[in-house]
Amino acid sequence: MSKERPTIADVAQRAGVSKGSVSFALNGRPGLAQATVDRILAAADELGWRPSNRARSLSVSKAFALGLVITRDPAVLSSDPFFPAFIAGVESVLGPRGQALVLQVVTPGESEADGYRRLASDGRVDGVFLSDLRHEDPRIDLLTELGLPAVTLNRPDGGSPFPAVVLDDRPGTIAVVEHLVGLGHRRIAHVAGPPTFVHATARTAAFVRALADAGLEPAAIEVSDFTAAGGIAATQRLLARPDRPTAIVYANDRMAIAGLGAAQQAGLTVPDDISMAGFDDSELAEFVHPGLTTVRADPYAFGEAAAQALNQLIDGPGEVADTELPPARLVVRRSTARLEEK
Amino acid sequence: MSKERPTIADVAQRAGVSKGSVSFALNGRPGLAQATVDRILAAADELGWRPSNRARSLSVSKAFALGLVITRDPAVLSSDPFFPAFIAGVESVLGPRGQALVLQVVTPGESEADGYRRLASDGRVDGVFLSDLRHEDPRIDLLTELGLPAVTLNRPDGGSPFPAVVLDDRPGTIAVVEHLVGLGHRRIAHVAGPPTFVHATARTAAFVRALADAGLEPAAIEVSDFTAAGGIAATQRLLARPDRPTAIVYANDRMAIAGLGAAQQAGLTVPDDISMAGFDDSELAEFVHPGLTTVRADPYAFGEAAAQALNQLIDGPGEVADTELPPARLVVRRSTARLEEK
Repeated sequence: MSKERPTIADVAQRAGVSKGSVSFALNGRPGLAQATVDRILAAADELGWRPSNRARSLSVSKAFALGLVITRDPAVLSSDPFFPAFIAGVESVLGPRGQALVLQVVTPGESEADGYRRLASDGRVDGVFLSDLRHEDPRIDLLTELGLPAVTLNRPDGGSPFPAVVLDDRPGTIAVVEHLVGLGHRRIAHVAGPPTFVHATARTAAFVRALADAGLEPAAIEVSDFTAAGGIAATQRLLARPDRPTAIVYANDRMAIAGLGAAQQAGLTVPDDISMAGFDDSELAEFVHPGLTTVRADPYAFGEAAAQALNQLIDGPGEVADTELPPARLVVRRSTARLEEK
Repeated sequence: MSKERPTIADVAQRAGVSKGSVSFALNGRPGLAQATVDRILAAADELGWRPSNRARSLSVSKAFALGLVITRDPAVLSSDPFFPAFIAGVESVLGPRGQALVLQVVTPGESEADGYRRLASDGRVDGVFLSDLRHEDPRIDLLTELGLPAVTLNRPDGGSPFPAVVLDDRPGTIAVVEHLVGLGHRRIAHVAGPPTFVHATARTAAFVRALADAGLEPAAIEVSDFTAAGGIAATQRLLARPDRPTAIVYANDRMAIAGLGAAQQAGLTVPDDISMAGFDDSELAEFVHPGLTTVRADPYAFGEAAAQALNQLIDGPGEVADTELPPARLVVRRSTARLEEK
């Protein structure tokens, strides 16, 4: 046996199961056969596995604080409508309980894992929110290693031992597509977020699925990055196509508002020449010209529910069920209109 | 003597000085005559005054965390470009030192003072950032009472015992006015932020001053609230005036971008019919149509400098000087143009 402290990968190998199963067993989550759980716990015991958070293993005292690690370029974060409202929702639960929110902003190039380790060290927080889930997100294993309770914002695709708080983006995206198809549009394009993110691909998949249900193919899918600059560039590529789409569905409002600007810059009138829709219902969506048809989620309620779930997990004992929030819904404004025959 | 614990107001009364002077003396800041300092310290001693932070008085141990209290409606906070970038700048200093940022979002109606008390209690943070300064800001006294080290973002108008990190908004606003006057505009209006905020009135005062230097009076000043909805309403009032202004200077980009929408909604073309300028250079400013002439501050650098100053204060000993950052500067885009004679 190596002198390195054993990891859950070592436990998984010894027990002959996936790392995900080890996470489930070590966190006491249901869904595994009891024999499997026993085998995993035995393997962990034989290897001397323990969570790496010194404070957590030495003491039952609480930090009365929850942690949030945000990995984002500061310039992008500046106009992200999600986190401030999410954080306000979290605080609405923490405030009355005398809990604090500890925030770490990790900029690209820094180690995100270090961000979580820092929060775990010295028992600085009792648990964390896991946001911006990526496909096969390595932070699931990391948090299991750190022994840090967590709730995930939406459901990881690789299995997870942690309770999820779910706000389903798909019905909103589907409603946008149905709205545009109902207005006569047939050449509908999508400007997607980065495919590393679970929520970005969920929106793209819902877009493709809703078109297929209407017997249509996407006119084009431009992969972008949720930024205004990315939205401009993607829109310009779409407008330059010989078979220019008659409608564009953006994966967030920021790219859509930039897209409105790009269309006007190109001499097009929205919605007469092209319809455009966003996602978020951010504050400016209502006030740009034309007002942006979009999808309204409620990040404040998301924060509230996530804080409640995380506190329930920390307070224990017992199983914490996943929370399903009302899905995002369509808000129709002026930026989408009936396709006029030319 | 009352059984209540003495406040700095009590100390001020006994020493026959202002509360501000008491704050200065108790925080060891210069600027008072030594005799005054001695009298204040004697009064504090006689009254048994001490900072109310139990942890701070019981121990010299550090929390290795800094605190930020943000008082903002979640909906407004969602599209505020300042705090996320400011926080990222703060984190760039805290991260390498292993410090955490503890965030409290206080929504309107909640007690802001409780937010600071919560941070001070149990020594949860070693110091705080004081943002969104108001005129005669009561938090200066509160933090002195709590014995909590602080830096202020910009300089309070009522005197302050705390080091200030200053990013002067005025040169940027003056440059906007000079730019518009240079383009031939004479009827220039201002959409201001709430006059309770020091930075809002600083921008308004700079606007009025720059016009006066050009021999002009403001065409109108509409007091608004930094929100998009407020920007729309203020713009509509300005556009309805018989002597409609030919240019509008907004106190932030969000109101200005909403103003662009309101002008287009009213059938006007920006900048042909009316010029508009913002303040912030938020991400969307470059990408709306027409691109917004605005003033660029650097909230990331502001956060960095504020964190450095606060750490210097906490690490002590010795005086921490105020920090002056490069002032915000004009960014000219398409939303402002030469006034055409009609």
